[in-house]
Order: sequence, then structure tokens, then C-alpha cells
Amino acid sequence: MISKLIDSIVSKDAPIVVGLDPKLDYIPGRIKDVCFEEKGRNPEGAAEAFWQFNKEIIDCIYDIVPAVKPQIAMYEELGIPGLVAFKKTIDYAREKGLFVIGDVKRGDIGSTSASYAEAHLGQVKIGEEFFSGFDEDFATVNPYLGSDGVKPFISVCNRQDRGIFVLVKTSNPSSGEFQDRLIDGKPLYELVAKKVNEWGNESMDGSYSNIGAVVGATYPQMGQALRKIMPKTYILVPGYGAQGGKGEDLKGFFNSDGLGAIVNSSRGIIAAWKSDKYSIFSDGRVGEAARAAALDMKKDLALVNKK
Amino acid sequence: MISKLIDSIVSKDAPIVVGLDPKLDYIPGRIKDVCFEEKGRNPEGAAEAFWQFNKEIIDCIYDIVPAVKPQIAMYEELGIPGLVAFKKTIDYAREKGLFVIGDVKRGDIGSTSASYAEAHLGQVKIGEEFFSGFDEDFATVNPYLGSDGVKPFISVCNRQDRGIFVLVKTSNPSSGEFQDRLIDGKPLYELVAKKVNEWGNESMDGSYSNIGAVVGATYPQMGQALRKIMPKTYILVPGYGAQGGKGEDLKGFFNSDGLGAIVNSSRGIIAAWKSDKYSIFSDGRVGEAARAAALDMKKDLALVNKK
Repeated sequence: MISKLIDSIVSKDAPIVVGLDPKLDYIPGRIKDVCFEEKGRNPEGAAEAFWQFNKEIIDCIYDIVPAVKPQIAMYEELGIPGLVAFKKTIDYAREKGLFVIGDVKRGDIGSTSASYAEAHLGQVKIGEEFFSGFDEDFATVNPYLGSDGVKPFISVCNRQDRGIFVLVKTSNPSSGEFQDRLIDGKPLYELVAKKVNEWGNESMDGSYSNIGAVVGATYPQMGQALRKIMPKTYILVPGYGAQGGKGEDLKGFFNSDGLGAIVNSSRGIIAAWKSDKYSIFSDGRVGEAARAAALDMKKDLALVNKK
Repeated sequence: MISKLIDSIVSKDAPIVVGLDPKLDYIPGRIKDVCFEEKGRNPEGAAEAFWQFNKEIIDCIYDIVPAVKPQIAMYEELGIPGLVAFKKTIDYAREKGLFVIGDVKRGDIGSTSASYAEAHLGQVKIGEEFFSGFDEDFATVNPYLGSDGVKPFISVCNRQDRGIFVLVKTSNPSSGEFQDRLIDGKPLYELVAKKVNEWGNESMDGSYSNIGAVVGATYPQMGQALRKIMPKTYILVPGYGAQGGKGEDLKGFFNSDGLGAIVNSSRGIIAAWKSDKYSIFSDGRVGEAARAAALDMKKDLALVNKK
């Protein structure tokens, strides 16, 4: 799976994933009004607005970026209707040729992780037939439970040709509270990174592994160190833009082949129409603003990678 | 919220939570046949079977145990229909006076954890009205992202009178891979436990806190040490029964007041009808077998607590 994502990153010349993390505040009135009118001012209406919002963005960016990353929490917040919108978003994005990284941060004991892995990347057998749950291309995974919480995901990656990104060093301010603590002189995140590299050997696909890592743009020096510990690991980099990470911080996340990292931006792209920089789109032209912001991000990253 | 759960544990004399983690293999043919007939041999039919199975169990145990713990992964595996069954199970269990611990192991950066917290324990505001997503009483939370991944849950606990159980030392074989590694001479799980104790001060409810911990029955000595580090923390103890934890191992998880821990059994109760010990119920009498197994577990734990 990672080789297909890389092909798309190279052909679109954009190591970019757009985070589809909708909030009602990001959605212009013209979309919300119609959805509330049709479905009610309730979770059904809000979920319909999420879906219509995502669709406009996907329609305007699918030809210039390789992937989207819906954050399931935003959809879960609306209960069942929200998860229906999550699933519709996944299906539509894949139909348009985008890779879908489900940002689900799942992880549990072995038998439970196996269910999560089938839910998001695999299939369930009922009678003699197989059915997909959410059918993402990649999912994010939490490593706190150790190998037997991660390996069921690897099995599904190998069987179904999918991938995962395991949390190593997250982008949030308090990520250091546990992740940075020293174990035999090295931070916990490096220990996790070594494991990710080891797990990665079980699912190689060309020069890189289907088992990737999450490392926040907000910690560029750690990114540089982690790049060396995990040479064949693709790094999903959140925290660019709204969370404070800048293009110039990102060089260390890439390998010398110009590959090895895919950078996420959520708010900076999907809510671009609300920002001063893209005020020409402030009349609710969500998709056009998202496209302009994605193209600007592409330029910013191209500079980084050519420095 | 924890004080209400404690009242129910005391009045039912049962520090027990029944894990509602259905699998098609656990469900007798008579239930599956009807559901597949009605909804098809597909995720809708399987989810209906999960729900009917859970309902039979709830009907037979609601008067003798205080709580149930549905593991969302099993439902997520069936996609949207599975999550509909998860929600129906929560609503029905609460209607029958049971406390519901959503075993969801969520956790992310602050703004995303806030969405998860509202999804499972809180409410979302749409227009001028508030709507609940899944509406559990408690949820389990993964601490890998540190305080700002946990605190949004605490806010919702305080606003909505709910509780959480934070993963400290999990029951699985490889939990030691990261959790047992020494930091300043102490294992990581003790560092997490200290944080849980600290977070707990922000949500006290009587003698205990709404911020609980998960510590596996499979690590009894660690349980004993953790009990002392977190004196006001309620401990949710998975791993009893099918995972290998025994009643005699559990004494150290309780405080001298006989409180402080609630022990989960999933397979051992919900699939009791399939085991040799309860073979008189082997003709698919799921609920009666579950009741017998829950009563046996109650006896086993009563002995422990009186030793």
C-alpha cells in the first residue's frame, strides 16, 4: 500500500494529506442552512453538513493532493449520523482516487486490536461472505499496549494491502509528559520508534514499509533524530499550520530521496475560507479556498525539500 | 458518578462488571438464525444478533451486577450497523439500571480528545439544543498523549457527572514492552499512575475520584503497588477468567474498606453457555448461563475480599 501512496505523492508532487476534521464553525451558512432545513437542526442535519462540506473540499483538491485524513473523533461526536458521514467521506474520497488515512488512534489487547484492524482496514466474515466496515487505506494506531496490540494491524495490512501509522511522538504540548521520559538514557519515543522500525520489517513494500509512524511537526529536532532511527518508515506529520509547525521545520522529516514523510494540514486548508489570507473566498467558497491553501502548502513544502 | 457506581456495587454486593464483547461464535444458532432471516446474512443481521444476545444477557444479570462494559471494537468491526447495536445496548442497559463503561480506549491531542469526550460522555450543541452521542456513564482512556489528551475528558466528567478509567497497566502479555520500562528507577506505569492520582484530585466524588485506572488482573503484584500509589482511584480490573486472572490474585486491588476495584469478566460470563462448567445451559440458554457464571464470580470475589 505504501508504494501506491508514494507513487501518488510523486506524481502529484505533493507530500500532503488534507485533514478532514469538520466542525460546525468551519461550515458556511449556505451549506448548514440547506442541511438543517432538510434533516433538522440535529445530529442528522449536522452530519449531512459535514458530508456536504467534505464533498466540496474533495471535489476541489482531489487532483492536486494524494490523500485525506478524516479524524473520526469529530464524526463520533455526532453519534451514529456522524459515523455515517465519516463512511460516506471515505467512500467518496477513494472513488476520486484519494488515499484515505483514518485518524482513529485505535489500539487494545490482541484480540480487540484484531477487531479494530478488521473494522478499519479489513473485512469481517459472515456466513460465506466478507464485508468491509469502514474500509480505509491506512489507520493510525496507539502503541501503549505493546507488540500484541499492534501486530493484529500488521496481519491485516499484509492480507489486505493496507498500512498503519503508529504514534511515536505526537504534536501536542504535553506529549513529552510520558513520551520524552528517559529509559536507559533514551526517550520513550525512541524506544517506540525502534519497535516501529522492527515491526516495519514484517510489511515491506518497495523501499518503505506499510508500517509508518506519527511524529509531530511541532518537534522538528526529534523528527530529525527519528528519521535516522526509522529509515524505511514513512512518517505522517501532523501539527503543520494551525498547530504551529512551519514548512522550514520539516526538512529533517524527509529522507535524501525526497520521500519518507507526508505532512497533514487540517484547519489551515479546510477552514482557509475563514482566514484573512484567503479573504477573497470569505463568502463561503470553501472548496476554492481549500485548493488555494493546498497549493500554497505545496509550494512551501517544495522549497523545504529542495533546500 | 463514581459514588453512584459504588452505591450499586455495595447494594448488589458485587464488584463486578460484565464485558459485553459479542462475537458471532458466542451467539447460539437460535438467535443468529432469526436475525439473519430477518435482516440478511450480513452486518445488519450480525449486529441484530449482537443486540438480541446482549439483551438476553442484560435481562438475566441486571439485578445482580452493577455494570456492563461493552467493548466498542467488536461493534465497530461490523461498521455502522454494529455501532447502532452498541448504542442500543448502552441505552437498554442504562434503562435497566446498569452503569455502562464504554471500553473505547480513546485519547488524542486536546481538541480531538474534547470531541471524543463529548461523543462518549457528553453532549454536542447544535443550534440551541444539546444532543448526546453514545451517552456512556464511564469511558476508558489511553494516556500516551499526556495531560492535554486526558483533561478534556475530566472537564466533561465534571460537567456531566461521568467518569473515566485511564489505562495504567494493561492485562495483555506484551503490556510490559513500554509500560514496565524504568524511568528514574520506576516503571512507566507507576508514572502514569501518579498522574492519574493527580488528575483524580480534579474530580473527587466522595471518598473516590471519577478518574479511575485500568490495571490488569494478570499482574497482581503490580496491582498491589498501584493500589498504594492511587489510594482514591477506582481500579477497573480486566483479565479475570478467560485471560488468566484468578480471584485469589485480586485482593491487592482492593482497599481496606473493601472498595476500590471493579473486576471485569467478558467471555467467562457471556459465553458461559459454551463452557463445560455450565453445560446444563449448552442448548443456547445464554442468559441463564451468564447469570450462573456471574453468581459464581460474585462468590469467588466475596471470598477474596473477606480473606
